[in-house]
Amino acid sequence: MIDAISFKNGTFRYLDQRFLPLQEIHVETKNHQEAIEAIKTLAVRGAPLIGASAGYTVVLGINEYTGDKAGFPEYFKNLIAEVNASRPTAVNLFFATKKMQEVYDANFENDSLEALFAKMTDMAYKIHNDEIDNCDKIARHGVELLKQDFADVLKTRKLNVLTHCNTGTLACCGIGTALGVIRLAYQEGLIERVITSESRPLLQGLRLTAWELEHDGIPFASISDSSSAILMQRGMIDFAITGADRITANGDTANKIGTYAHAISARYHGLPFYIAAPVSTIDITMAEGSEIPIEERNPDELRKIFGTQVATPTTPVVNFAFDVTPGTLIRGIITEKGAVVGNYNEGLARVVNG
Amino acid sequence: MIDAISFKNGTFRYLDQRFLPLQEIHVETKNHQEAIEAIKTLAVRGAPLIGASAGYTVVLGINEYTGDKAGFPEYFKNLIAEVNASRPTAVNLFFATKKMQEVYDANFENDSLEALFAKMTDMAYKIHNDEIDNCDKIARHGVELLKQDFADVLKTRKLNVLTHCNTGTLACCGIGTALGVIRLAYQEGLIERVITSESRPLLQGLRLTAWELEHDGIPFASISDSSSAILMQRGMIDFAITGADRITANGDTANKIGTYAHAISARYHGLPFYIAAPVSTIDITMAEGSEIPIEERNPDELRKIFGTQVATPTTPVVNFAFDVTPGTLIRGIITEKGAVVGNYNEGLARVVNG
Repeated sequence: MIDAISFKNGTFRYLDQRFLPLQEIHVETKNHQEAIEAIKTLAVRGAPLIGASAGYTVVLGINEYTGDKAGFPEYFKNLIAEVNASRPTAVNLFFATKKMQEVYDANFENDSLEALFAKMTDMAYKIHNDEIDNCDKIARHGVELLKQDFADVLKTRKLNVLTHCNTGTLACCGIGTALGVIRLAYQEGLIERVITSESRPLLQGLRLTAWELEHDGIPFASISDSSSAILMQRGMIDFAITGADRITANGDTANKIGTYAHAISARYHGLPFYIAAPVSTIDITMAEGSEIPIEERNPDELRKIFGTQVATPTTPVVNFAFDVTPGTLIRGIITEKGAVVGNYNEGLARVVNG
Repeated sequence: MIDAISFKNGTFRYLDQRFLPLQEIHVETKNHQEAIEAIKTLAVRGAPLIGASAGYTVVLGINEYTGDKAGFPEYFKNLIAEVNASRPTAVNLFFATKKMQEVYDANFENDSLEALFAKMTDMAYKIHNDEIDNCDKIARHGVELLKQDFADVLKTRKLNVLTHCNTGTLACCGIGTALGVIRLAYQEGLIERVITSESRPLLQGLRLTAWELEHDGIPFASISDSSSAILMQRGMIDFAITGADRITANGDTANKIGTYAHAISARYHGLPFYIAAPVSTIDITMAEGSEIPIEERNPDELRKIFGTQVATPTTPVVNFAFDVTPGTLIRGIITEKGAVVGNYNEGLARVVNG
């Protein structure tokens, strides 16, 4: 499996995702401003990956520091502000800089700069590794649930799975969330073929998920988003699994636009639909999905495709970035602390508080 | 409203649809080979429009004839063969050339060439005008059904309608089928806004339907195909209406890929879904939709968008051109001979045979 990011000998290495799948360009840098630029320009994307990249970016910044201990607090404050400003809506980014800040707060007084920097570097690795571990655990719980739900079918044949958008190593570190479940299920012989829906407008399924699967040698085919219904009708899909951007107390799940249509089609055809996401995605302070604000994005995302103008610049567009799938359409929500099925209000509170 | 094609003073005029919506280029020609080229290159598209264009193309061909009556049979035979070869899978094209052949067969012996050519020109106009009339009648029956189904809602507000692909003047002559119903409903004050789904992979909704609506000044917005579900969830769509490529005896309807997903979402949200299509689309020799062969088209339609490569050339693709919506999901099938609701086996046989 490819590493979307890595950090070694003081060098941050990232895969520039803007050129995928047509070009695979890895970039190495020791300069924290170049790393910030990579986050800003979406060369690095996906909430968990941005978080891990932010941790390493702070490490690059402190490694550049040449002053004495007295000057460091001011330098560090500016560095954190600079990293935070790179993607002001990315929650995982603030989570990462907050972790780095905590290490600083706890150790600056007593440690030498060298000792402090070592602890901060350890924290950056830990942020990254925790994401990787979460994906491994999600995959394990997901595969167990699939083995249970498809026990009879799996006696005679393998399964065909639909996934949407990109939830793989390019977005999540490690093996990914929904794509992590698929990867492990494939390794364990459960999967025949993966169907990846292209995910208009930005085509993450066609470009990124397809690229990851091709790279791993996992059999797959890409479809237009609205083809999932006919494939289900023809028995070419056995279940669907996607990631999540936010999950409310009752299991309602906001995810990339298009997820909801897949879930409705799955229900109509009697197929189970699963969500795979870390516990950090669950927000039990929200009772239900109608409370989730849905971002409307730039109409040009639809009017242009990969830079090519396809509609007139004046074409009115409704471009919701996400949709909300009711918990009632979801067979199970798979987290690193276990898969929740049945009563989401009880089960999700248990994994969040447990 | 724009005329996609017209014929006047021996000149065939067509709108080159390949450049829409970014450029509006009308082409005039008296040369039948140029007209054939327009059909071949998809400058002119849509089954009924191809049929009408084929009739005029035959007229251009006979107008070019400079020989005597004895030489005409051989010339005419070659001309028909040449037109038939331009789009060998277009049923409407053969329907048109057959009509022209019938005029020839009935009148060649007794008429002068001049009189024969006049009758053939009349037939070409008739083929075109019949399509226009059918659309007007479909629209009238459609609006009546909408007024009936939404009698209560229309007392307090107008309706928001979803349509898919292009069923307007660019495909059907006249005001169109599904889009014709929408146009007339808008004129009669029933419609607030049209939602046009982009219709991947070839974007007919985003490019062509949007262009027609913009041209007519009808309020609309374009969406990605899989956004229809969230718009329905949020009350932004009251009903959906599309065209049809083929309808079986029980009302199962093959139409552009993506139609089925809209129909499933409409059912899930309790919204009516309608089909508008001429009687010629109904094939009562087929009992049900599973008998309809579904064309799989070139994977490059998904891998490239408007000429821009977006996926790797090796990305495996499943690219069904059509899907089949079960009659059970369809509230009514609107034809030029009336709207069929309820028992399709009875009702469709009635309009076909009546």
